[in-house]
Amino acid sequence: MVDAPETGSPESPARTFPVPTSVSPEAQQFLSMPAFGSAEYPELDDVPGWVAYVEQADAGLLMAMELRNAGANVTVAELSVDGVPVFDVTPEGAPNGADDPIYYDIHGGALVMGAGPGCRAMAIGNAAGTRMHTLAVDYRMPPRHPYPAALDDCLVVYRSLLEDHAPETIVVGGGSAGGNLAAALMLRARDEGLPMPAALVLMTPEVDLTESGDSFQTNLGVDAVLTRSLMPANLLYAGGHDLTDPYVSPLFGDFTADFPPTFLQSGTRDLFLSNTVRMHRKLRAAGVDAELHVFEAMPHGGFFGAPEDRESSEEVRRFIAAHLKP
Amino acid sequence: MVDAPETGSPESPARTFPVPTSVSPEAQQFLSMPAFGSAEYPELDDVPGWVAYVEQADAGLLMAMELRNAGANVTVAELSVDGVPVFDVTPEGAPNGADDPIYYDIHGGALVMGAGPGCRAMAIGNAAGTRMHTLAVDYRMPPRHPYPAALDDCLVVYRSLLEDHAPETIVVGGGSAGGNLAAALMLRARDEGLPMPAALVLMTPEVDLTESGDSFQTNLGVDAVLTRSLMPANLLYAGGHDLTDPYVSPLFGDFTADFPPTFLQSGTRDLFLSNTVRMHRKLRAAGVDAELHVFEAMPHGGFFGAPEDRESSEEVRRFIAAHLKP
Repeated sequence: MVDAPETGSPESPARTFPVPTSVSPEAQQFLSMPAFGSAEYPELDDVPGWVAYVEQADAGLLMAMELRNAGANVTVAELSVDGVPVFDVTPEGAPNGADDPIYYDIHGGALVMGAGPGCRAMAIGNAAGTRMHTLAVDYRMPPRHPYPAALDDCLVVYRSLLEDHAPETIVVGGGSAGGNLAAALMLRARDEGLPMPAALVLMTPEVDLTESGDSFQTNLGVDAVLTRSLMPANLLYAGGHDLTDPYVSPLFGDFTADFPPTFLQSGTRDLFLSNTVRMHRKLRAAGVDAELHVFEAMPHGGFFGAPEDRESSEEVRRFIAAHLKP
Repeated sequence: MVDAPETGSPESPARTFPVPTSVSPEAQQFLSMPAFGSAEYPELDDVPGWVAYVEQADAGLLMAMELRNAGANVTVAELSVDGVPVFDVTPEGAPNGADDPIYYDIHGGALVMGAGPGCRAMAIGNAAGTRMHTLAVDYRMPPRHPYPAALDDCLVVYRSLLEDHAPETIVVGGGSAGGNLAAALMLRARDEGLPMPAALVLMTPEVDLTESGDSFQTNLGVDAVLTRSLMPANLLYAGGHDLTDPYVSPLFGDFTADFPPTFLQSGTRDLFLSNTVRMHRKLRAAGVDAELHVFEAMPHGGFFGAPEDRESSEEVRRFIAAHLKP
């Protein structure tokens, strides 16, 4: 029955992948667009180079986010929590008192992008998606502020939230790099004796900065959003810290059953598919109530406005509602 | 931000995939072996060719299964249920009275393989995995018996089971082609007014014989177990019936919230990854309690004896226990 004499996985010839008919017309439209391109990564020690890189990337990110947020009916306040800037976003009609549920949003952007206006735009998107009062942390980032600055800022805001809100009214969430920080925050909060929130939402989380997952190989050239390794940004973020440190790559953390119920989402074309499914398995092995949703042909971060994205938001809302006290 | 002028997904160069370090040593060992090879498919109308093809393929399948079952402590009886041959398998110590839970096992094998000794061996494996009294249906198959023979046989045995067992004590399960039949059986049983079982287990189910899922492209050459399209076997099975008929490709069925709670499993390298996640989404959209488990770097059907396979069995047992009345 065996005819291939070589060891290793079968060879995959050069190819392009046809747009599948198995997704919505809107998703097909997205998949038929050219793959995202990006500027070359600067050298690790080239601070002005990184500043310029981030500035350019942020402009594109912001444009995409603002397009997606068009029509979102929210009120936004810029505040400071113990010196950390935050955006306080309330969708129209959402309760935002001290006893009401609150979504603590940790933004994405490869741990280098998405500061300021990007953080604000992503917070609006997540508030519109969850329909919850949302507090988004505008954490410090490289090149000027490597690890642990971002995690420190996330922790400051979480501590402050716990002063005003019962933990069972708090949901913590993050996508991509924000999923890294959200998961690392849980580990660090637990280690510092803080209570866990009601639930955790990890959207295609970047939980392994070593990029050891198989989809970093198998979905390279398949994911049209993340089209290359993020290692230069990972190293810049870590600032010389070990990439396997659980606060840097929370996939390598020691999970216990008191970790909050966790929602995980990815797509079959996602470069972070392995990040997501490995995190799911790690949590399940620890006895955590963790549920996985993988969307057909979806690249990293979704289809930017297809019915599948709305379906994903609906699952998040249902998950949150099931884990918030009535 | 966009630099690729072409439409369509990014190009993937020719490559082999390194064995990932992100799985167990046993799984790495499995992934470092040569890809499965198979004989050429016969022409669709070449009955003796198919008989010979199946005979050869079955021999390999049986060898793998018996290796996996070595040491399984079970009692097996060969019975006939209203003319349909079945294997009745009881793991040592498992209760097998009329009031005790029973696992109704529908075997895999691309809808052409796995009859007789193969069915028996797969039933032993599933009985050992679920630790439940198991009844496996040795359904008729092509080339002599195309659709609907297999589904008819599955239904005959399900009807008979319902005469002796309360539906809430029955779990229906199938892997690969067995997942096709298990899901189609639920649709047909519902349409014929029969009650649903306590739970359904679909292990990397072949729910779409049209092969419209994206992973039929993206995981081609990545999955070392299923290394090509199964379309010739699908057409042989359908015997001229429309491949999109929900009894032939249950993914296209009309699901409702009374469908049984469903466990779905796949792997990131699985050619049937799209089959699995699309079925999960279809069930979720209908409000069905369906849970998804995707294993890192796993090809179709698992690693044939790695810790990940045992972890998968544990999840199935936990799922079944949660859905059987105490």
